Amino acid sequence: MPPVLTAFATSPDRGQGLARDMRVRWALEELGVAYDVQLLSFAEMKQPAHLARNPFGQIPTWQEGERVLFESGAIVLHLAEQHPGLLPGDPDARMRAIMWVFAALSTVEPPIVERSMAWVLEREQPWYAQRLVILDERVHARLSQLSAALGDAPWLDGDFSAGDLMMVSVLLRLKSSGIVDAYPRLAAYVTRATQRPAYQRAFAAQLAVFQNG
Amino acid sequence: MPPVLTAFATSPDRGQGLARDMRVRWALEELGVAYDVQLLSFAEMKQPAHLARNPFGQIPTWQEGERVLFESGAIVLHLAEQHPGLLPGDPDARMRAIMWVFAALSTVEPPIVERSMAWVLEREQPWYAQRLVILDERVHARLSQLSAALGDAPWLDGDFSAGDLMMVSVLLRLKSSGIVDAYPRLAAYVTRATQRPAYQRAFAAQLAVFQNG
Repeated sequence: MPPVLTAFATSPDRGQGLARDMRVRWALEELGVAYDVQLLSFAEMKQPAHLARNPFGQIPTWQEGERVLFESGAIVLHLAEQHPGLLPGDPDARMRAIMWVFAALSTVEPPIVERSMAWVLEREQPWYAQRLVILDERVHARLSQLSAALGDAPWLDGDFSAGDLMMVSVLLRLKSSGIVDAYPRLAAYVTRATQRPAYQRAFAAQLAVFQNG
Repeated sequence: MPPVLTAFATSPDRGQGLARDMRVRWALEELGVAYDVQLLSFAEMKQPAHLARNPFGQIPTWQEGERVLFESGAIVLHLAEQHPGLLPGDPDARMRAIMWVFAALSTVEPPIVERSMAWVLEREQPWYAQRLVILDERVHARLSQLSAALGDAPWLDGDFSAGDLMMVSVLLRLKSSGIVDAYPRLAAYVTRATQRPAYQRAFAAQLAVFQNG
């Protein structure tokens, strides 16, 4: 029996590949690991059967027999430790790749998510325009620093790693805003990553759910 | 030469132990690792010497000879992998402890930080009261789920681990709000963790910076 990934039965982003199962799908394709998908409705995500997998009622979760994990960062790291391809062999380089996973999730993603959440929850509020200025400034500050860190290198630190996979996944959340285009190095970095065959296969797999759903 | 941790020269929280160097200090005390501290002003954090350590210009960073890491999550994980005490030996239990580190940083901390940021940036704005209701709801949703996950156990999964260290560090950010007190299991969990001698030593070390500064 292949391991099982959970994902949204109804994609909130209409198949743009922004849900967090996409990060795990991409890692699985990079690593060549076969998997099954269990689709969950929003109601099912809050039921005891899923809360036993993830007490926060979110997707994705990952089940390999008795082993159950949640948190896309933890799942990607687990897979990268089990299968070669997303973490360098050198211990220092390996730790730096893991550091970039944390940087993507803890430093770069929060202001991006906050900007998206404001659009979802507050775009009809009288204060939205004023807040958006603050939110955009915070996103730009991070992108500017990230662009400087990347420099003219193809990837953040040596070969493509779990850190790049997570950072690009985070940057893709800004796609519809056009903000990344203001940083040519980051725009090229995202294009370079999404042209990888593994990304393309993962994207097609999540899109198929939406198109069939 | 002991390794070097960077921290704020002037503590923005006036020594409450909420800056992210505290998480690393606590891990170092749990693991029995000696370290030096380099204090940085806000101006120094944005200078090239520090940006070479962390392109996002934040503390903490961690230097062991030529090895330089940033991101408190990555530093704590690195230390926990190098020294026994914060990760279980069993591979599955180890992965679940790491999963709780990610859950603390990616799922529980963002709404807590957003609530704090709103107080810092928006408390004089006419919309603050209305937004605070939304922000509080998001924090309560996570705490309620976390309390259910903890149940009557002393720690999140077996023995005290890096996952508990990070989760408690995140919950401590809510201390002044009193919100955690609405969840007796979580309040007891935070008390249990902060009574650990390693926490007490780390807290005293960061407080000494503020009192001497």
